[in-house]
Amino acid sequence: MPSGELFTGIFVPEQVREATSDRAWLQAMLDTEAALAAAEADAGVIPAEAAAAIGTACDAGGFDVEAIGREGRSVGVPVIALLRALRERVDDEVAGFVHYGATSQDVMDTAAMLVARRVIERIEPELDGVAGACAGLAEQHRGTLMAARTLMQHGLPTTFGLKAAGWLDSIVAARERLDSVSLAVQFGGASGTLASLGEGSEQVVGLLAKRLDLDEPAIPWHTSRVRVADLGASLALVAGALEKIGLDVLLLSQTEIAEVAEPSGGGRGVSSTLPHKRNAIGSVLAIACARRVRGAAGVLLAAMPQELERAAGAWQSEWEPLRESLTLTGGAAAAVREALEGLEVRPERMRENLHATGGLLMAESVVGALGERLGRRRARDLVDAACERALDRGTSLREQLIGDGAVSDELSEEEIDRALDPGSYLGSAEAFIDRALSRYRGDRGR
Amino acid sequence: MPSGELFTGIFVPEQVREATSDRAWLQAMLDTEAALAAAEADAGVIPAEAAAAIGTACDAGGFDVEAIGREGRSVGVPVIALLRALRERVDDEVAGFVHYGATSQDVMDTAAMLVARRVIERIEPELDGVAGACAGLAEQHRGTLMAARTLMQHGLPTTFGLKAAGWLDSIVAARERLDSVSLAVQFGGASGTLASLGEGSEQVVGLLAKRLDLDEPAIPWHTSRVRVADLGASLALVAGALEKIGLDVLLLSQTEIAEVAEPSGGGRGVSSTLPHKRNAIGSVLAIACARRVRGAAGVLLAAMPQELERAAGAWQSEWEPLRESLTLTGGAAAAVREALEGLEVRPERMRENLHATGGLLMAESVVGALGERLGRRRARDLVDAACERALDRGTSLREQLIGDGAVSDELSEEEIDRALDPGSYLGSAEAFIDRALSRYRGDRGR
Amino acid sequence: MPSGELFTGIFVPEQVREATSDRAWLQAMLDTEAALAAAEADAGVIPAEAAAAIGTACDAGGFDVEAIGREGRSVGVPVIALLRALRERVDDEVAGFVHYGATSQDVMDTAAMLVARRVIERIEPELDGVAGACAGLAEQHRGTLMAARTLMQHGLPTTFGLKAAGWLDSIVAARERLDSVSLAVQFGGASGTLASLGEGSEQVVGLLAKRLDLDEPAIPWHTSRVRVADLGASLALVAGALEKIGLDVLLLSQTEIAEVAEPSGGGRGVSSTLPHKRNAIGSVLAIACARRVRGAAGVLLAAMPQELERAAGAWQSEWEPLRESLTLTGGAAAAVREALEGLEVRPERMRENLHATGGLLMAESVVGALGERLGRRRARDLVDAACERALDRGTSLREQLIGDGAVSDELSEEEIDRALDPGSYLGSAEAFIDRALSRYRGDRGR
Amino acid sequence: MPSGELFTGIFVPEQVREATSDRAWLQAMLDTEAALAAAEADAGVIPAEAAAAIGTACDAGGFDVEAIGREGRSVGVPVIALLRALRERVDDEVAGFVHYGATSQDVMDTAAMLVARRVIERIEPELDGVAGACAGLAEQHRGTLMAARTLMQHGLPTTFGLKAAGWLDSIVAARERLDSVSLAVQFGGASGTLASLGEGSEQVVGLLAKRLDLDEPAIPWHTSRVRVADLGASLALVAGALEKIGLDVLLLSQTEIAEVAEPSGGGRGVSSTLPHKRNAIGSVLAIACARRVRGAAGVLLAAMPQELERAAGAWQSEWEPLRESLTLTGGAAAAVREALEGLEVRPERMRENLHATGGLLMAESVVGALGERLGRRRARDLVDAACERALDRGTSLREQLIGDGAVSDELSEEEIDRALDPGSYLGSAEAFIDRALSRYRGDRGR
Repeated sequence: MPSGELFTGIFVPEQVREATSDRAWLQAMLDTEAALAAAEADAGVIPAEAAAAIGTACDAGGFDVEAIGREGRSVGVPVIALLRALRERVDDEVAGFVHYGATSQDVMDTAAMLVARRVIERIEPELDGVAGACAGLAEQHRGTLMAARTLMQHGLPTTFGLKAAGWLDSIVAARERLDSVSLAVQFGGASGTLASLGEGSEQVVGLLAKRLDLDEPAIPWHTSRVRVADLGASLALVAGALEKIGLDVLLLSQTEIAEVAEPSGGGRGVSSTLPHKRNAIGSVLAIACARRVRGAAGVLLAAMPQELERAAGAWQSEWEPLRESLTLTGGAAAAVREALEGLEVRPERMRENLHATGGLLMAESVVGALGERLGRRRARDLVDAACERALDRGTSLREQLIGDGAVSDELSEEEIDRALDPGSYLGSAEAFIDRALSRYRGDRGR
Repeated sequence: MPSGELFTGIFVPEQVREATSDRAWLQAMLDTEAALAAAEADAGVIPAEAAAAIGTACDAGGFDVEAIGREGRSVGVPVIALLRALRERVDDEVAGFVHYGATSQDVMDTAAMLVARRVIERIEPELDGVAGACAGLAEQHRGTLMAARTLMQHGLPTTFGLKAAGWLDSIVAARERLDSVSLAVQFGGASGTLASLGEGSEQVVGLLAKRLDLDEPAIPWHTSRVRVADLGASLALVAGALEKIGLDVLLLSQTEIAEVAEPSGGGRGVSSTLPHKRNAIGSVLAIACARRVRGAAGVLLAAMPQELERAAGAWQSEWEPLRESLTLTGGAAAAVREALEGLEVRPERMRENLHATGGLLMAESVVGALGERLGRRRARDLVDAACERALDRGTSLREQLIGDGAVSDELSEEEIDRALDPGSYLGSAEAFIDRALSRYRGDRGR
Repeated sequence: MPSGELFTGIFVPEQVREATSDRAWLQAMLDTEAALAAAEADAGVIPAEAAAAIGTACDAGGFDVEAIGREGRSVGVPVIALLRALRERVDDEVAGFVHYGATSQDVMDTAAMLVARRVIERIEPELDGVAGACAGLAEQHRGTLMAARTLMQHGLPTTFGLKAAGWLDSIVAARERLDSVSLAVQFGGASGTLASLGEGSEQVVGLLAKRLDLDEPAIPWHTSRVRVADLGASLALVAGALEKIGLDVLLLSQTEIAEVAEPSGGGRGVSSTLPHKRNAIGSVLAIACARRVRGAAGVLLAAMPQELERAAGAWQSEWEPLRESLTLTGGAAAAVREALEGLEVRPERMRENLHATGGLLMAESVVGALGERLGRRRARDLVDAACERALDRGTSLREQLIGDGAVSDELSEEEIDRALDPGSYLGSAEAFIDRALSRYRGDRGR
Repeated sequence: MPSGELFTGIFVPEQVREATSDRAWLQAMLDTEAALAAAEADAGVIPAEAAAAIGTACDAGGFDVEAIGREGRSVGVPVIALLRALRERVDDEVAGFVHYGATSQDVMDTAAMLVARRVIERIEPELDGVAGACAGLAEQHRGTLMAARTLMQHGLPTTFGLKAAGWLDSIVAARERLDSVSLAVQFGGASGTLASLGEGSEQVVGLLAKRLDLDEPAIPWHTSRVRVADLGASLALVAGALEKIGLDVLLLSQTEIAEVAEPSGGGRGVSSTLPHKRNAIGSVLAIACARRVRGAAGVLLAAMPQELERAAGAWQSEWEPLRESLTLTGGAAAAVREALEGLEVRPERMRENLHATGGLLMAESVVGALGERLGRRRARDLVDAACERALDRGTSLREQLIGDGAVSDELSEEEIDRALDPGSYLGSAEAFIDRALSRYRGDRGR
């Protein structure tokens, strides 16, 4: 009975899931064995015909994944059972050249790097979609006024475009980090010396890297796990940047705020019992995925100190968390892309909410205007008092300012209204949007 | 293509795996729907015939798990698709009584608790085996001398029995914690009030609990997650206690120490390339499992703060980590049980290692004996110097003591030998073993 | 230059901070040395006069904490420098009886347990305050209608009292867990055998426990860390239960929702620049504290597997995280208590928000009423359609229901209004409040 | 009573500690205020004389850190109290230009980045020392034979130089990551728009960055936390690479292995009770530090999703973990540098241990030699059997090979001895060392 489909299907779309499936891992191991044989043939270490025969046999199609896992229990890796099955598929004389000079970890680590690269290739279009949607929103809503919210309370006015530009900048930054992770082949043999190949065989490492289109490491990294931990951390950065978007969409979708809505229709976001619900389901899924990516990243970071030449537990603990962090980052990216690409933005509601406090969130602006006449300190005191009265009496700040002689002596109603106009108090918002867009476009241009 | 078998088979034995499989989760959800219908019939809320028909339909056999997961993506839970399939299996008039008054989370949470209880029932015999093996080793090796090692260096003499008694005490303590976790039904309806059942329907909660043999909560706990986090933390305590045993076995199995060996034979612990290897594979697997249980527990603890009446992401992040922490605690328990039940203990090697430092580890004992004559401070200075010389010159401490007039003036060779005898310097080791055994037996007696 | 005051002062009130200060730790170590001497005198192991002299010298007042820390760098514990200083304070013949038979870890672990107990004693009144405030709110607002919010959207009606009862139940549960943690003395000597005291000295363990009012362990637990990890996990459960309250208060305080407000006045919750801000500062602090408690708990759980008879790194990693988890749980408890004790609850605003969707959140109730006439399935279809129209056209659900002949043929306007009345759709809310209050009172009664 | 000195002194040397002290944080905040005023004067936003006066007042010397922390409790940041104190130090007309246009988070975040840069400057020489020591060991011990150990058992022969080269490569990789983290100023005002400065003021961001020698961000990053999380993750990578070295040194220092020893003398590594102990204290401290750095990194990663324009809890949770991760990475680096710079390496002991198994670890080599005659499969079977007999009978592998006709028919004693010579079975070890050294030197050359 397969496990993991029930929940994974909810969090991760098919195209990402299939790139981290058991079958995909198995194929990556077989690809490693095939490429190793080919690289060794290139280097003259094994016969070319043997390499060709091995290459032909390395198709995951006919292997029994469940049996390979089960047999692995007595040795702690799936490689030995896989090799037995693989050797049965080739002639006896070829069998001796299968996995030649390699250790189980060489295959597992290289396969993990291959899986990582392949899944990341599936995640990239999702991230492209997210970034593109953010850029579109930033451009389109560069003038769309709304309340900025700090510590969950109205702060000053901002624009929806600036918010989207902030999302964009995080995605760009996190993605740069992910792109910078070195995905390298592993090939060191039983103890990292390639002893069984004899001196001078280190060239096989480079040939193998070339064949698999992975990086060539300076030295075998069986217990030097910076790249694995870095991969986990980088995925957590990407997932965290996605989660921030999900969290904002979720908060802005709340019934009382309702400034954005995720796409609905076709049963998306409905409830089993409540007919009126339109849940922000993409955001919910992205948040759930990101939380689990972090958990997985924690296991990978904790696995860094590995004993001597092969770890007794830490290495083995990496496999599933690595798979999870890849899969669920893909899930988060797809969920946010879906949410943003169909996002309903409601400028009129944003404006309504912006004015809901009767101008209170323009208090700083009034302090600025009044401060030019009375000095900032005195101005702040007067505005503090006016805010206090407005809050206590449930009136607008405008009313309190106009009714306060100390204020109205200095500022005309017109000046007060100008100071209370959110649209005139946006500072460098547009400039910041342009800078974020320009960084994004520069990145894409590379 | 099923996922998760390739690695899970390595870490977790079949009987534990099947209790947390997709099929097992699905059956637990169906058991919840069946028990809910029955409890509601008991309370007169729905007709008894409807409950009977629902009960009959609730067999996971014919459901398409993969489809249920996939369809769940648009709503963030597998329950809606499951209900659609379930309702198709009953008559139209019965369909309206399926999931009556319940919300998706009622079913997911109750099913999770059921799965937890069922997996724990599979873990218990493994823990029984571990505790029994520890108790046996403590009893049998109560007099088996070996070096205690502190900060990875020889400390004083101890016995292997005392070490095993320490393992035992941790297992007993961690298990008590796990036993104390409240596994309760969830039933509150869409917002925790059971509104659609009308007033007085809270009795259904108790009836449901009784039918499923789970605890009855005081109040719906949709966003009060103490019990889920507690379960995760308790599993991490159990896994951590198991990991400690694995770590000790691993360390004592090192080539140069070789005081214990995990069972081998039948290919257990072999290497893909090195014919001489007998890896301590049970310990390795237990350590790998425990590291991942901790990662999962971290996600569960982080999921505690859940928003208002239903969490948007945190709750959804719990499902897989809960499954993982259960499954892998089972894997760790089985691995340690296998390692301990067949553990080869080598008293002669322990004795050899104990003497390897030429008596250095008896230095404290000599300070004690000499201190009675010269005062502790002077004695410590003399013994410090003797140790220093022994280390520098590569001789035994005995030689240095006898050769030092300041010492030999006070202690005869016989007295020095008595002070250097590890067997006479075990303090309360046996008493502590007895106390640990007695706590263990008391626990079992309950 | 002291460190840690700048931020700790923000998160933790003085009375909790002082119980985990360097001075408090030092005093706990000295209390341990004094109690050990006294217990050994009780057992006839050392002279009563020596114990008395040691007791007198064990006052943290005159010790140089910073120097003790700095000197500890070369040995990895602060105990050796402390002992040197302590021995200088007593006569030469007494000095030999200081720390008699103990190892550094005996002192550190016992002191840690003492500190834990003392801090928990300071946290208890804060938790009493939190629970009391929750119980008061549950009682007082048992009929205060508001919208339940699931996935951050209006669900069904609930009462503020039921929400507070849910908070209460979590606090009660988490606290029970914390109360159940075994805080025990540690006394095993250099390798856990009490060798230097000779046989039969295990009775000192019990005498020491009695003097310090801590538990007596079955066996030394130098590398059996269940109790430390359990303490960390239990504090994380308490902190998580507090964080849930903080999160809810924060969400309900949002400008557009404004159903509750934390106490303000005296500069509480103000902003450096925005005169109108009244931040929910207690909630913010509680959330920040709880996040860090979880981080600390993670380190403590990860420290469980400790090598052989003394850990090389894991044990040493526990000290600060243990301190942090205690301190910050205290900070979270104080912050939530302050927030709740002065919480402004706004029933009228709750009612306003409840009606803001024009009755949409009563859709399930209408399905129920209409279902009695037409069957649930047909009723759900009609109500789904009415919700859809209400959402699309921005009208109330009531309007759509009355305007739909298929509905109005079955239900009169009066019946529709009854079905749309939130006050009549609260199910078992009151009963659940009573059950939670009864569990809380039962607990207090014990 | 200061807190944090007692333990911090143990883990972190003075020069790192003082760079993250409360005083250092305060000074960084004041440096930010001074630089902001200067940058605003550069841009013509405030008068140059005001900036000069503010600059003069910004010396942490006279501020009361403890009071600033305590007062911060009511607002959740230390900035407001700091500003009050700062404004009291300047004339009234200047006071209005203090913190002009800034929000508390601008100051906290920029100060955090400054502290990070300053601490990293203190960590760099420690890492230089570690890398230099590794490179020296790799070079010097490129031919020093020892047993590689996989899963804690003898694998094949390797060299101590190769091991040190692996350590080096990880340090180089982790450090590259740390160097790549963008440390940028934060300046966005209350809601990220710089509204109070008016349009066109975004140039102040660049001027501020230049004055503080930090990066200029594209856009305010109040709730875009990639750089903070990245910093935490990168520190965890560095700490993890250090911990790996500590772990290896610890394992190689075990009494029975004793292939290396940390420097001792001057009380370093002694025990409170055991005169013979020479603990590997640098390794122990490094491991303890790294574990806590990971805990802190987890909190920072978890803080990524921050609400809207200012986080309510997540941001506040970053401050101490950021401090901790910096401080303790410094502690780990110093501890490993001390351990490695004085490391005693014992080639003769390495050779002894290498031969301890009677040639068993050369089994793969014999398979290779024999395989050329008999085919690998047959060869492996014969060698497996010989190993089995050697293990069972406690004899050497050599003896079993020579005594087995099937082997001795193919290989002469001389050939067997050649196959059993560890020195001839090192494969590409030297080449890998050279590659790692070359990468390291290339990096330094940049």
